[in-house]
Amino acid sequence: MRSGSNAGLAANTTNLQIRLARRPDGTLAEDDFQLVDGTVPRIGAGELLVHVRYLSTDPANRVYMKRKTYRDQVQTGEIMGGFAIAEVLESAADGFAPGDLVFGDTGWQEFARVAASAMLKMPRVEPLSHLVSVYGITAGYTAFIGLGHFGHLASGETVVVSGAAGAVGSMAGQIARLRGCRVIGIAGGAEKCRVLTEEFRIDASIDYKADDLDEALARFAPEGIDVYFDNVGGETSQACARHMRRSGRIVLCGAISGYDSAAAPETGISPRKLANVSITRFLVLDYLDQYPDAFTQMAAWVAAGDISVREDIVVGLENAPAALIGLLGGGNIGKRMVKVS
Amino acid sequence: MRSGSNAGLAANTTNLQIRLARRPDGTLAEDDFQLVDGTVPRIGAGELLVHVRYLSTDPANRVYMKRKTYRDQVQTGEIMGGFAIAEVLESAADGFAPGDLVFGDTGWQEFARVAASAMLKMPRVEPLSHLVSVYGITAGYTAFIGLGHFGHLASGETVVVSGAAGAVGSMAGQIARLRGCRVIGIAGGAEKCRVLTEEFRIDASIDYKADDLDEALARFAPEGIDVYFDNVGGETSQACARHMRRSGRIVLCGAISGYDSAAAPETGISPRKLANVSITRFLVLDYLDQYPDAFTQMAAWVAAGDISVREDIVVGLENAPAALIGLLGGGNIGKRMVKVS
Repeated sequence: MRSGSNAGLAANTTNLQIRLARRPDGTLAEDDFQLVDGTVPRIGAGELLVHVRYLSTDPANRVYMKRKTYRDQVQTGEIMGGFAIAEVLESAADGFAPGDLVFGDTGWQEFARVAASAMLKMPRVEPLSHLVSVYGITAGYTAFIGLGHFGHLASGETVVVSGAAGAVGSMAGQIARLRGCRVIGIAGGAEKCRVLTEEFRIDASIDYKADDLDEALARFAPEGIDVYFDNVGGETSQACARHMRRSGRIVLCGAISGYDSAAAPETGISPRKLANVSITRFLVLDYLDQYPDAFTQMAAWVAAGDISVREDIVVGLENAPAALIGLLGGGNIGKRMVKVS
Repeated sequence: MRSGSNAGLAANTTNLQIRLARRPDGTLAEDDFQLVDGTVPRIGAGELLVHVRYLSTDPANRVYMKRKTYRDQVQTGEIMGGFAIAEVLESAADGFAPGDLVFGDTGWQEFARVAASAMLKMPRVEPLSHLVSVYGITAGYTAFIGLGHFGHLASGETVVVSGAAGAVGSMAGQIARLRGCRVIGIAGGAEKCRVLTEEFRIDASIDYKADDLDEALARFAPEGIDVYFDNVGGETSQACARHMRRSGRIVLCGAISGYDSAAAPETGISPRKLANVSITRFLVLDYLDQYPDAFTQMAAWVAAGDISVREDIVVGLENAPAALIGLLGGGNIGKRMVKVS
């Protein structure tokens, strides 16, 4: 049975879905997923039927397969979990109407039935993909809030960002630049490093695949690091921890270096080992209420040309597994997303 | 051989010293120490001969016996380590003259030979004991700097201090009050709790020996804790961690609950377990360069009657072991110190 209104969809509309075929063991593979032609769900009170426009390809997607996080672990046979920007087709909830844009965990499918209370209403912008990148909850907004609440940035301070060519890192570096900081980005490969300094206009780049991290950090941050914004964990974070300055701040935002393996992600950074540096593990989902103010500030920067927005758009839901596998291998510059419709 | 000038001391002046007689196993006992009549040392270039006035009785003293910290572990047979306020008798170093007051690790003895570079010159105040309590490096100054650099206090925020009747805690609570915060102190026993609200004039007290911590924290901090300044570790800290508010700050300053045992002190608080709260392990010794400014601010508060200074002075170096043993058992209110001369 479908809902009565059917939201204007033809009765035979199918719902392409990507389900977890098996629990990945080590490096993620396309065979870990299965494409299924599902049905368009019907909704109940308090729910929305949404049409997914862009899936946000996030390193955290890989963690959903490993363990419970802020969401339940994705079980074999279930629709793969993931955030998206979607358009409301049908609403059985106050405050939402067809045509509204929302952000939330729709899973990897074309049409989703979601609890309205779990969705954040989003502004309408051009291009729409900006809601995933510069204004994206797991991209620009994460950087904005993470630095804003835990970076305590002061003009002239030295900020190091790892994963600096990625979705969050590219924004964190630019926001720190706009806050008057000296910004050093760490990324893998010459092309990413070129983008850091030329497009994102941060002060220096370190290629962790080619450079000696300790030597490079000592050169670019001779007086130490005031703020380390971490997206990768592992060896890179260990090196940055060794160069922190008294009263420095470490924001542990992601640990992609450890996600695509059987082991639990681990930065190894703890207050027990590092005195006089504040350490915060940051999860953006507790801060969705501050989105409107952040959007206003970010939009002003974008309008002024102060932020370079780099997007990496993969077309077609069926390509979501490959998009994630590539992301975990460091294949993206800027925000990777999947255009579903 | 003694130094030529002898600093005006009679040739037969002895130097009472307290040495570690054996490695304590579990709760510290007087038998773990040995009183020895030593000699007054002679000094070399860059050194000072100092006369100890007040020993600072610090929980950290107990840790010196267990492991290497910011100082070497105290070995059996060695003079017990500890900070003191001392007066320079003889100087072979630029910038120090007889009569100067200094702070540093003299050890538990009457006369010490110290490297001038390891000593901090102190102002002269009345009473002199204030250099150990309200202006003491391991008391008022620790609270001032720990809150100043890592508390990020905003007026109206809720601050919880554990060990709130102790040397650092009593100052942390009052400084947070002066910064416009709502302050809840945790201490053991009715008398300490009375002092917290009546003498230190903080907003509320919790007696961890009598009250249910979770219930009391929920009552006094219904919207959660913004800043937790920790002097005790253990169960108390676990409870406070459960009540932290989004964007809160935890300053791990001490962990006295775990010191007087064979096990390593452990708060159990880590960013891995607690998201969106910054956690800092704070050591004051990296911040001695900021002493003059802090002194000025603290002295203004004292002069205005805004800070109540509570001191617990034990007279006689020979009583230093009992003073420490009592401190580890929670026997003090305010700053405990040993008057040596």
